[in-house]
Amino acid sequence: MPDASLQQRLFTALCDIPLIDPHSHINPHQAAAKTLDDLLGYHYYTELAHSAGMDQGPLASDFDPKERTRQILKFAQRYQNTVQWSWMVELCQTFFDWQGDSITEQDADCLWNAAQSKLSQPDWEEQVLKISNVEKVFLTNDFDDPLTGINSSRYVPCLRTDDLVFKLHEPAVRQRLAQATGMDVHDASTLKNAVSKLFVHFKQHGAKACAISLPPSFVPGAVTELGFNDALKQNDHATVASGVFWYLAECCRTCELPFDLMIGVNRRVYEKGVFQGQDLFDQRTSLIQYADLFNAYPEVKFCISVLTSSQNQELASYSWIFPNVITSGHWWYSNVPTLIERDLKLRLQCVPSTKQIGYYSDAYKLEFILPKFNMYRRLLSKVLAEEYVLAQKWSEERAITLGAELLRGNTVSIFE
Amino acid sequence: MPDASLQQRLFTALCDIPLIDPHSHINPHQAAAKTLDDLLGYHYYTELAHSAGMDQGPLASDFDPKERTRQILKFAQRYQNTVQWSWMVELCQTFFDWQGDSITEQDADCLWNAAQSKLSQPDWEEQVLKISNVEKVFLTNDFDDPLTGINSSRYVPCLRTDDLVFKLHEPAVRQRLAQATGMDVHDASTLKNAVSKLFVHFKQHGAKACAISLPPSFVPGAVTELGFNDALKQNDHATVASGVFWYLAECCRTCELPFDLMIGVNRRVYEKGVFQGQDLFDQRTSLIQYADLFNAYPEVKFCISVLTSSQNQELASYSWIFPNVITSGHWWYSNVPTLIERDLKLRLQCVPSTKQIGYYSDAYKLEFILPKFNMYRRLLSKVLAEEYVLAQKWSEERAITLGAELLRGNTVSIFE
Amino acid sequence: MPDASLQQRLFTALCDIPLIDPHSHINPHQAAAKTLDDLLGYHYYTELAHSAGMDQGPLASDFDPKERTRQILKFAQRYQNTVQWSWMVELCQTFFDWQGDSITEQDADCLWNAAQSKLSQPDWEEQVLKISNVEKVFLTNDFDDPLTGINSSRYVPCLRTDDLVFKLHEPAVRQRLAQATGMDVHDASTLKNAVSKLFVHFKQHGAKACAISLPPSFVPGAVTELGFNDALKQNDHATVASGVFWYLAECCRTCELPFDLMIGVNRRVYEKGVFQGQDLFDQRTSLIQYADLFNAYPEVKFCISVLTSSQNQELASYSWIFPNVITSGHWWYSNVPTLIERDLKLRLQCVPSTKQIGYYSDAYKLEFILPKFNMYRRLLSKVLAEEYVLAQKWSEERAITLGAELLRGNTVSIFE
Repeated sequence: MPDASLQQRLFTALCDIPLIDPHSHINPHQAAAKTLDDLLGYHYYTELAHSAGMDQGPLASDFDPKERTRQILKFAQRYQNTVQWSWMVELCQTFFDWQGDSITEQDADCLWNAAQSKLSQPDWEEQVLKISNVEKVFLTNDFDDPLTGINSSRYVPCLRTDDLVFKLHEPAVRQRLAQATGMDVHDASTLKNAVSKLFVHFKQHGAKACAISLPPSFVPGAVTELGFNDALKQNDHATVASGVFWYLAECCRTCELPFDLMIGVNRRVYEKGVFQGQDLFDQRTSLIQYADLFNAYPEVKFCISVLTSSQNQELASYSWIFPNVITSGHWWYSNVPTLIERDLKLRLQCVPSTKQIGYYSDAYKLEFILPKFNMYRRLLSKVLAEEYVLAQKWSEERAITLGAELLRGNTVSIFE
Repeated sequence: MPDASLQQRLFTALCDIPLIDPHSHINPHQAAAKTLDDLLGYHYYTELAHSAGMDQGPLASDFDPKERTRQILKFAQRYQNTVQWSWMVELCQTFFDWQGDSITEQDADCLWNAAQSKLSQPDWEEQVLKISNVEKVFLTNDFDDPLTGINSSRYVPCLRTDDLVFKLHEPAVRQRLAQATGMDVHDASTLKNAVSKLFVHFKQHGAKACAISLPPSFVPGAVTELGFNDALKQNDHATVASGVFWYLAECCRTCELPFDLMIGVNRRVYEKGVFQGQDLFDQRTSLIQYADLFNAYPEVKFCISVLTSSQNQELASYSWIFPNVITSGHWWYSNVPTLIERDLKLRLQCVPSTKQIGYYSDAYKLEFILPKFNMYRRLLSKVLAEEYVLAQKWSEERAITLGAELLRGNTVSIFE
Repeated sequence: MPDASLQQRLFTALCDIPLIDPHSHINPHQAAAKTLDDLLGYHYYTELAHSAGMDQGPLASDFDPKERTRQILKFAQRYQNTVQWSWMVELCQTFFDWQGDSITEQDADCLWNAAQSKLSQPDWEEQVLKISNVEKVFLTNDFDDPLTGINSSRYVPCLRTDDLVFKLHEPAVRQRLAQATGMDVHDASTLKNAVSKLFVHFKQHGAKACAISLPPSFVPGAVTELGFNDALKQNDHATVASGVFWYLAECCRTCELPFDLMIGVNRRVYEKGVFQGQDLFDQRTSLIQYADLFNAYPEVKFCISVLTSSQNQELASYSWIFPNVITSGHWWYSNVPTLIERDLKLRLQCVPSTKQIGYYSDAYKLEFILPKFNMYRRLLSKVLAEEYVLAQKWSEERAITLGAELLRGNTVSIFE
């Protein structure tokens, strides 16, 4: 199988490229896992266990962590076919010297101990980063994060703005905003001042992006100051959201920050779902909803993530036409190999290579960066091998150069 | 080609598993075909012949059946590329010892006779089931089916409810309901009594599911008794439909019956189409329409079929998150190899294996169960070989165990 | 690799079939390129260069053409991964004896000269057609095209009707219509007369189709004469558009012309885009919008192009059911290999082979017909090899016969 060895060579070459992970939920003050529970507690495993029949008792905060991992491992037998579980197996093999291709309930104690002997080492964070060949990791920071004490040569702040846009009517959010900025927001003008202040604060601490997740029905549009003030008074949350969002784009322009738009998620669809396992989507959404935004802010780089393969076709076309639309990663429900492969192939076939951010981990713990990026690198190697080296007679070197743009080069140039 | 022989071994192993076909339109009183006309009269062949240019004269009930098969065979030359036709060829090869890979108009008499010599054998039904390795077949029964005289160790009743939900305003349906239950339905209370009575009747006769097909625009929601009564008086069919549907879910809960939802079909789109060849769909539909239902009835297992590959991505995600959402088969317009392959791959990569009903035949005659399931088993073997044995180094035995869950195990456990 | 040589044999056989290109934007009075600028000026290259960072200065009409090609080649390095660029490379290799697999900015002068030495030959048009094995090319003619001086044994007029349907309120369009027909359109009756006159004119000049592109929101419906007259007075453009469109279908019926519907494009989405690089789409559209039309005009052949893979699933199903719905080519944003492959596979698996127009070039210059059709022929060879010869044991000859229907046979029979 010359094909397989070609893919393997490309994969190896891509693995040699130090990673910059352009989107994660890593806590920079506790980036690596402390126990196996931190890893099996990843929402993918708790939500799949629950979906497969586990009640939520084991997820209570006072439940014994070791017993919780046993429960999750038990139910994992029902979803050992999933790609999410394959990340866990590869993680254990890579970091805990796990032998064998599966993990069962019977392995609970043994795996706990194997994990513990590694996770408790004082330099574990360094080890994980080194083994994973990770150079930098982008964070997701609350707007009121003081951003102090972060090793900024390694962890890159990003301003997450969901709360500002969609929860400005909540007293707690207003209070957080007041505390963070020293300003009381009660109209368009004070909002702009407060938000500008946040941007300055984030820029000063090395932030490289503004980010937000958006529901499928969201249609951005400019709001006049008068309209915004009225909306604020009348609790017209939708108009307030539009106004704040539009002003964020304005600040991205002023501060020269790319704006990460993660489009398509409905929150709390499964009301009694586990923590972070309640959100789903509605396929009936279109990037045409963002046409005014893209036209209004040609200077802002919009890095777009979508949730479905059919919207990926829109994304590829919009990025092919709009200079300021960039394809970004394979997000959440579309972060599954068969979808990644077809979405990636389409982007490669019609979007300039310089406008594609290949992948981000979205991880909560450093240990997941490697298996998730490996999944992506395998698919990238496959597509490069089939579509470029074999079908178009590209040299392997040229194909690797293309892969390197997606994996790292564009992240560097887009986020500077 | 080690790959091809691997797939072949998996296919053979999967074929050894006795089938339970979880959805069909088999008439238990006449399950097998009587003549070739019964088989070529399958709507796939009449609608494709009509689509390819055949007028509807040959489909008249008084048209000579042998001449009708000749006509359909003639037009079949124009759709011999389709998968539907490949089922017919495989059917003839398997059951009528047909030699050669194609069937032309010239073969009409010869094939008719070959079919007749088999179909006229007194134990033909037994032979088909044996050759097809079929153990049980789920039926589609009208709500007023007396369910008598059915060999219930082989044929499993299912309560089909389209008429109750969408045609309760038709006098004929009301009359059938009155006759079946001895009750005159004129408000919410009498409706509930009548429907409950149907459920009891079906349960007593071994029914294993309630089933319905739904248009893309349907959004289930609870209706108050008062609201239902008003709607009934004002001929507000949409609200009546919602009310009846919601009460069916309630009865599924009470009677512990899974609820098969076949989502997305618009009836009579092609007004002058052949019988059963008039329905199409609108891709603009979402499972978010069912979120309230899934939240309201956590105890009910909803076995969901969809019509498009893009809604399959919703289905996979909803089944990954909601414990009570089960992926079910590859329905009608999505029952085509290239769609099955990608839909199946996605489900396997992100839905717990215990929540996937792999396939059902939807057949009207027993002879179609084998070629349709064979199509599916070939694709399942391919995906198991590529994605698990080769890509993840699973043993063949482990891959077959996974395949067996989709093919049979889950049908057993979900429908008990 | 027996597979690769099988595909190669099928490809070679398909290349031997003289092409009839059923849709292009070729100017019959200047069909071939005059300079390299004519080729690199194709909107794919200008829009991708702009998307990748090129400002629009070089696209000004008074910009030096040679310098413009240098600029586009420079930015092409950023999209050399795209399929559109692969057409250019194959074009240069085929027609300009270009050696090597890539073209860089440094090659600008050399390539310009290589091109010029060919393009300036007096019989270049003949040479291109011969090398490309092209017999006939369908055109896109404005409704007021006099259609004179066209070599009609080679170039086939088609009546393009976007302006009539969507711009009848523009004085310039009314004036063009008056000039072309000698009639002043001010109500339904004069409109019908004028349009009928256009159809007669086009038929007399050998036109073979009426064609239009339509936005995703368009829902055709009959308009009464009274309703049309009112709409015209009240500047209700949407109703006027419906009325004109419906009457075009009527004329297609009367004149026995197929009606090419290119469904799904929104015009001027990217307002400051390059010429022809401003249009995009909204995936939220359905062929159910056309059900009334398909039912009302069973005698008209509707050759349908769609923009997305998810609407392709609708198209395949509608063509499987409606006798008058024909699948047509792979249009614009869906004219990308990974989409073509899956869309083609689906059509082959469920639509009668006689109802599929495989491909059209959509080209503005003859030189692009060959590389675009080659892309398609390679994919068609792959699908025929995998799905028919290997999977179903068809003979190569039978597979080639099927491919020939899509490539040429159906174009002949559908457009007569």
